[in-house]
Amino acid sequence: MPETLSQVIDDLVLANRILGHESVLDAFGHVSARHPDDPGRYLLARSRSPLLVEPDDILEYTLDSEPVRTPKVNLYAERVIHGCIYQARSDVMAVCHHHAASVMPFCVAGKPIVPVFHFGATMGSQHTVFWDQHDEFGDTNLLVVKEDEGRSLARALGQHWVVLMRRHGCTVAGTGLQDVVARSIYLCQNAEYQLRASILGAPAALHPGEVKPAGEMNLQPRVVARAWEYWTRRLEAAGGWPLRGGGAKAARSAASNPAPARGKSISKGKKRR
Amino acid sequence: MPETLSQVIDDLVLANRILGHESVLDAFGHVSARHPDDPGRYLLARSRSPLLVEPDDILEYTLDSEPVRTPKVNLYAERVIHGCIYQARSDVMAVCHHHAASVMPFCVAGKPIVPVFHFGATMGSQHTVFWDQHDEFGDTNLLVVKEDEGRSLARALGQHWVVLMRRHGCTVAGTGLQDVVARSIYLCQNAEYQLRASILGAPAALHPGEVKPAGEMNLQPRVVARAWEYWTRRLEAAGGWPLRGGGAKAARSAASNPAPARGKSISKGKKRR
Amino acid sequence: MPETLSQVIDDLVLANRILGHESVLDAFGHVSARHPDDPGRYLLARSRSPLLVEPDDILEYTLDSEPVRTPKVNLYAERVIHGCIYQARSDVMAVCHHHAASVMPFCVAGKPIVPVFHFGATMGSQHTVFWDQHDEFGDTNLLVVKEDEGRSLARALGQHWVVLMRRHGCTVAGTGLQDVVARSIYLCQNAEYQLRASILGAPAALHPGEVKPAGEMNLQPRVVARAWEYWTRRLEAAGGWPLRGGGAKAARSAASNPAPARGKSISKGKKRR
Amino acid sequence: MPETLSQVIDDLVLANRILGHESVLDAFGHVSARHPDDPGRYLLARSRSPLLVEPDDILEYTLDSEPVRTPKVNLYAERVIHGCIYQARSDVMAVCHHHAASVMPFCVAGKPIVPVFHFGATMGSQHTVFWDQHDEFGDTNLLVVKEDEGRSLARALGQHWVVLMRRHGCTVAGTGLQDVVARSIYLCQNAEYQLRASILGAPAALHPGEVKPAGEMNLQPRVVARAWEYWTRRLEAAGGWPLRGGGAKAARSAASNPAPARGKSISKGKKRR
Repeated sequence: MPETLSQVIDDLVLANRILGHESVLDAFGHVSARHPDDPGRYLLARSRSPLLVEPDDILEYTLDSEPVRTPKVNLYAERVIHGCIYQARSDVMAVCHHHAASVMPFCVAGKPIVPVFHFGATMGSQHTVFWDQHDEFGDTNLLVVKEDEGRSLARALGQHWVVLMRRHGCTVAGTGLQDVVARSIYLCQNAEYQLRASILGAPAALHPGEVKPAGEMNLQPRVVARAWEYWTRRLEAAGGWPLRGGGAKAARSAASNPAPARGKSISKGKKRR
Repeated sequence: MPETLSQVIDDLVLANRILGHESVLDAFGHVSARHPDDPGRYLLARSRSPLLVEPDDILEYTLDSEPVRTPKVNLYAERVIHGCIYQARSDVMAVCHHHAASVMPFCVAGKPIVPVFHFGATMGSQHTVFWDQHDEFGDTNLLVVKEDEGRSLARALGQHWVVLMRRHGCTVAGTGLQDVVARSIYLCQNAEYQLRASILGAPAALHPGEVKPAGEMNLQPRVVARAWEYWTRRLEAAGGWPLRGGGAKAARSAASNPAPARGKSISKGKKRR
Repeated sequence: MPETLSQVIDDLVLANRILGHESVLDAFGHVSARHPDDPGRYLLARSRSPLLVEPDDILEYTLDSEPVRTPKVNLYAERVIHGCIYQARSDVMAVCHHHAASVMPFCVAGKPIVPVFHFGATMGSQHTVFWDQHDEFGDTNLLVVKEDEGRSLARALGQHWVVLMRRHGCTVAGTGLQDVVARSIYLCQNAEYQLRASILGAPAALHPGEVKPAGEMNLQPRVVARAWEYWTRRLEAAGGWPLRGGGAKAARSAASNPAPARGKSISKGKKRR
Repeated sequence: MPETLSQVIDDLVLANRILGHESVLDAFGHVSARHPDDPGRYLLARSRSPLLVEPDDILEYTLDSEPVRTPKVNLYAERVIHGCIYQARSDVMAVCHHHAASVMPFCVAGKPIVPVFHFGATMGSQHTVFWDQHDEFGDTNLLVVKEDEGRSLARALGQHWVVLMRRHGCTVAGTGLQDVVARSIYLCQNAEYQLRASILGAPAALHPGEVKPAGEMNLQPRVVARAWEYWTRRLEAAGGWPLRGGGAKAARSAASNPAPARGKSISKGKKRR
């Protein structure tokens, strides 16, 4: 089932808002998708908090993280995280970089997250790997802004799906937007349970042979679709969905046909959520 | 006071949504009720997040967890949890399987929950029992999907009302829907207080002789009714109740009388919560 | 400034809802006020969750906790908590009994709450006192329902304003409704900070000489009024205030003048919050 | 870009409400701005909970914390915190004093907050400094109300941007309103992650050479503006913004032109949020 660009943009806007509403992303952090027609490009919002992202905010980038069209807006500084992972991993179709409150204690303490329940197995390994920007680059402002930094992070990710970044946050890769949203949310749940279990004593990880089957089961499209409906409904109840002005198709159509009345109505819809 | 099928379906939908809103269930987990007219059957939603369940989603199962009518929808994979407990325990009229955040640290750390306040005594014993799927079945994806697995879990539950499942979650049985909802919510509160008390030092459990009277008092229908009104009001304030299209009776009536105007109005009501 | 009965009932309803919304009370727990005209009586809701209490729910009791008028509704089982404290303490004008989540870990672990910040000093002493029903009454269901139990609890409270009840909850006394609400909410905040500070190391209590001036300052009517406006606004934002059908005066007037139109409008207002 | 008084008042009202909604301020605590035209004056609300502050609540003070116009309303008792810091630090343009739940455990335990992630570096130093009112002033009610107390606190702050107050709370200074709001919110996040990381083991602070670049990067106006849009949107979704009666300019204009119809509409707007 080939996806059109409009569909992916709509899904990317929804993924931004779901991750914002479910407290994976806050004022900062970002999520991207590989371009459905051109594996050498990816889609990412302009510099804006994910909960507020709209179809017109989505920009197209080459894999060296240069915007395809000269932008009139601010860009995320850390977009090389996305570009370098898409370069290194042809199986990755979506990337989320975040500083979720449940994951941060592990990034701060330098302790790996291990899968402690079946949904946690969607992290895809026995424990998370770490990347410390200071090891290779010394004193920085901790933002991943240079190609070298992005490539170093992508090397640390390797064939995994999650990499924790010391004193910074976390990056999650996925085989698609629903996949990366699910992995990101379940990782947060797992981290929360692991932290709280450690108050009671040593938390027990899944048996090594449980991780693969449990992770694969819970990333089946049918299973993720059930959660996706739930996350969308929660976002709706909070007034964050659907978009007042319609999705990507409506926005593009309005943009290419700037009749005053229509354009006005859409812009009004966007301002009031 | 005999309950009609319509009443039980309506209560089951409300129980789904209350447990979803009170954070016992999230995208996953499920709650069932034994059929009011046929103890050899039970009622359970199609595969859907509990907060979103509607009367039309409720399906009828035999106790070996086969749907009575060939379904056109996806089913919960773990329905044997329900069927096997109904088989083993004729006194159980409702079952809830969940992965509540407050209970998970105990499932991960392998430490029993003990009743630490009077409402916690509704768990019905001095401490929770454990079931570890790995003990008998080795490496699995941790889902309870085979009759053998369900029967093993039911054996671990025994004559208790709560069983913790290592690295997975929890299953609670009850004498009815209000009973199982109350037990599930109070268990979460108890677990939260026990975890936090353990930061201060060794939490003290109820005296053995306090558990039975305290548990029985707090499960009296009059007491549970007070809490039920509260949980319903909270759900209402969040926009999750009442159903726009009416309850089970209205839905069935509309289904058997598919006049365009009426059917349309009900379906519209269901889509917007 | 003498208070009329109508005013106290309205304040009591608001106190119920504020304490419910601020998570001091949940499905259970209750708050009362001494009768403004008769110190030998007190006012307390019928058995109902505090967030839902309306003026018509408020009943009048003698200090031995018997209803003045034969009620047609269920009563709180633990009303002797209120009656026995009003008997023992002529300076107490309001009482709140609760099982707040932030206080429960201390009731479970048997560790006293100590004032760790200036608002915490409103507990009025260097540390909270404890009462354990089991000491004097052995195995019970932990509810305080007999006069003897109530009197024992009042003795444990003594000249203090807060008493923690082992494996049960907490009772707070005050010089008025706004006073008891403020003390209850600040105690919860103090307990939360003390618990979390204990993760970092031994929390430091206020110096003995700081407790009295800090407690008195923060219970001045002018200071409490500022918080009261805030708690009311938060309740309003959640849709819990004002009452749709008006306050106590409107309700009584409608009750004594049951003209169909008016009565209907009020009852409709009450059902929808 | 010179700011007018009206703009600063509007920003100050919004800062009050954002800090209230983001749980930095609650019923208590306050935020001020230096007067845009007169560095010898500052702007601060009358004694009111920050979430409820409106343009007409903003008063003008001299740096010795005396109101410029004789007020008919209650004033914050602790305004010398603001006046004394503006006196001591000409580079400070805004001050926030709070008792945020995430910071309080550190004030209670007497443990410094250290920057544990890049946004935490906005505290501007390797660790927070402490001030203990008892050291110099002995037993008080812990409120900072005398010039001497305010000056002592300002000395403890020194050239830093954050000072923790033992058994009391925290004061944050900034180069402007958006700056002080950002520093306050990020400090709370940092404190939360540090506390929770300490459950897992010793939390690691940023390398000394990372603090300055990370702090400066994240306080760039362009970066703060992205967060400001997010915090404003969240406040809007909760019904706390925009003001019903318009901002400072509208309020002043209505005040100087008390036409019944207009004045009425604005006052109505203010009462209902």
